[in-house]
Amino acid sequence: MARIVMKFGGTSMAGIERIRSVAQRVKREWEAGNQVAVVVSAMAGETDRLVNFCREASSLYDPREYDVVVASGEQVTSGLLAIALQAIGVPARSWLGWQLPIHTSDTHASARIGEIDTQALLAATAGGEVAVIPGFQGLADNGRVTTLGRGGSDTSAVAVAAAMKADRCDIYTDVDGVYTTDPRIVPRARKLKRVTYEEMLELASVGAKVLQTRSVGLAMKEGVRVQVLSSFADADAAAEPGTMIVGEEEVDDMERQLITGIAHDKNEAKITLTEVPDRPGAVAAIFGPLADTGVNVDMIVQNVAHSTGSTDVTFTINQAELPRVLDVLDREKATIGYDRLVHDTRVAKISVVGVGMRSHAGVASTMFKTLGDRGINVQAITTSEIKVSVLIEEDYTELAVRVLHTAYGLDAEDTAA
Amino acid sequence: MARIVMKFGGTSMAGIERIRSVAQRVKREWEAGNQVAVVVSAMAGETDRLVNFCREASSLYDPREYDVVVASGEQVTSGLLAIALQAIGVPARSWLGWQLPIHTSDTHASARIGEIDTQALLAATAGGEVAVIPGFQGLADNGRVTTLGRGGSDTSAVAVAAAMKADRCDIYTDVDGVYTTDPRIVPRARKLKRVTYEEMLELASVGAKVLQTRSVGLAMKEGVRVQVLSSFADADAAAEPGTMIVGEEEVDDMERQLITGIAHDKNEAKITLTEVPDRPGAVAAIFGPLADTGVNVDMIVQNVAHSTGSTDVTFTINQAELPRVLDVLDREKATIGYDRLVHDTRVAKISVVGVGMRSHAGVASTMFKTLGDRGINVQAITTSEIKVSVLIEEDYTELAVRVLHTAYGLDAEDTAA
Repeated sequence: MARIVMKFGGTSMAGIERIRSVAQRVKREWEAGNQVAVVVSAMAGETDRLVNFCREASSLYDPREYDVVVASGEQVTSGLLAIALQAIGVPARSWLGWQLPIHTSDTHASARIGEIDTQALLAATAGGEVAVIPGFQGLADNGRVTTLGRGGSDTSAVAVAAAMKADRCDIYTDVDGVYTTDPRIVPRARKLKRVTYEEMLELASVGAKVLQTRSVGLAMKEGVRVQVLSSFADADAAAEPGTMIVGEEEVDDMERQLITGIAHDKNEAKITLTEVPDRPGAVAAIFGPLADTGVNVDMIVQNVAHSTGSTDVTFTINQAELPRVLDVLDREKATIGYDRLVHDTRVAKISVVGVGMRSHAGVASTMFKTLGDRGINVQAITTSEIKVSVLIEEDYTELAVRVLHTAYGLDAEDTAA
Repeated sequence: MARIVMKFGGTSMAGIERIRSVAQRVKREWEAGNQVAVVVSAMAGETDRLVNFCREASSLYDPREYDVVVASGEQVTSGLLAIALQAIGVPARSWLGWQLPIHTSDTHASARIGEIDTQALLAATAGGEVAVIPGFQGLADNGRVTTLGRGGSDTSAVAVAAAMKADRCDIYTDVDGVYTTDPRIVPRARKLKRVTYEEMLELASVGAKVLQTRSVGLAMKEGVRVQVLSSFADADAAAEPGTMIVGEEEVDDMERQLITGIAHDKNEAKITLTEVPDRPGAVAAIFGPLADTGVNVDMIVQNVAHSTGSTDVTFTINQAELPRVLDVLDREKATIGYDRLVHDTRVAKISVVGVGMRSHAGVASTMFKTLGDRGINVQAITTSEIKVSVLIEEDYTELAVRVLHTAYGLDAEDTAA
């Protein structure tokens, strides 16, 4: 017997047949004597439809009214799931964001969840009723509807789990867990039983799109045990265990791996400024204006100074920001004093992630040697406490992921496993 | 300068282009210095879509959750109209049913409006902001979403107008006013400048589907001046005056007509029970069980007793209720003691309506003579203070409406008028 929050995404809620299947899955947990709250997304495609309405109405739409419009998608699915649950004998009711309420900031269209009133919620679930809560939406202090930004339902689920002090927050997705790497690249990738919040953050932010990054950060802060599992397994059978995302203290030494997974990200762009004057303040002249326009710079490499007293500076950004960055650097050319600007989007970032890494300095050298043996050139490097990332030529992405997966002993013993 | 409530139905809100056109129309009233609140329906077809979702989820859906689902349609259009108004320079915001709130009973799916808190609404509109209010929805005392039943947005508009003490409630529809009869049958039908609440109630309930009956009843009770006008006239031009629905005291003697209009209704079914025993209590044995099952009986005719001591009883009901009525009467056959049951759906009810009628007993005889002259047989009659209705064979509907329209002097002098 436990208190559980279950979260279902848009694909799981797309149409009444699927909502019925979700209801069956919820019924299993409820029949097992658990107290259950369910957080739901809008039907797949519905939020896009509503967002497009707003854009059509005005390209400069008022985010407060946008929130009124787009929050309706989750309102519909929460009512429908409550009906579907009742139809199979499970007492259920919907609790809209303003009804609980789920308090948020008033930064419309990207609000942050504050406090969630759980009194009614706890009373209802303790009384054996399933609470169905629309994800993505909340209430600002001024009484207006807010939404959390795209993908916000994961965050809603974790926030509700934290507020209810739930034993578990089960996120049903279209993958059945978190893998050591992308199984489409490496068939021998293994599903992880456990992964720490920190590792999940690195894996998510570098391209393993299983959970919204914000939701993982919140789970870490609030200590919510999150489980990622498949919504497409047989709804009538017991759910197959997915991947638990937990605090580091829960991963015991026996199962602790040096490296947990390999991630890749093809959305980076590399920019090189040549002949930047080699003097104090030159780098600040580059990155100051970029920071001012809100651009996130990821990796930075500065070569040793040329004999001419100048140096080349290379850094990476998200590809989507490239036009903005080129614009800024063009305007600042005289101030920075560089010669040429070269940019390249045919790059990929490969990251080796693992909490065990902290005490193992050899990880990085294994990485460089493995890549070097295959003739893969490392163009830039960054490291964090639990991650080493390198920038390579995009064409080598799959090869690099495969050889690193083998080099760190992550391959499953049997592809059938 | 006035305080105005404007109401737009689903056809007017069907898509962003039409919502933009509604915004233009609202802007006109606002630019004229009026304080404006707008009540909107969901996009045409949207409520059907949402109702179908509920039915698919469970034929015995919980009306409380049904309300959560279907109320979302008006939430979307109110947000979108606010955005469209802002886009053309009109300050606007949406006020959802629970935000004002619009208090209602807790009879979900057919709630009745109670009090409406107007403090925020009056402050906003007095400050020059247009208030956009989703029709059809409200808030029960237990904090749950309610809806008023299909077509409820007219009622919402009148209730808001009453609460705000608005000078006028303009209902934009796909007709440009209330006519003396259906212009498709009688090209010489005239648009009425004014009609009393009582007349409108009779015209609406007998088939002139311009306004929801409940909204007219509420307007009468609260003394709200309602104007029906076309939403399809040029949005940039000043709206052409439609039909004002007002209290009887506002219709002066000069313009008072004996008869205001002719309505017809083909949705009735006629039932005759033959050889019913002619004794006290026999009629009660028929209509008691029908009333118990909630069937509305409209006209009743009892022939004089046969020499055999029995009589034929004829009455009419709504066609949709025929299967239920046949079922009840079959079960009660022994108790009632009738011989045969004959039913006929090929009938039509023709009604002559007018407040002037009260002091003019000749109306009914003109009606019978006019129909008799054309060989149209009257099968049943009912009268109210401002109406005489007859039941005739359905095939004669159009002929009957035309000749009565002429007989009561309702024809326009010129079809171009």
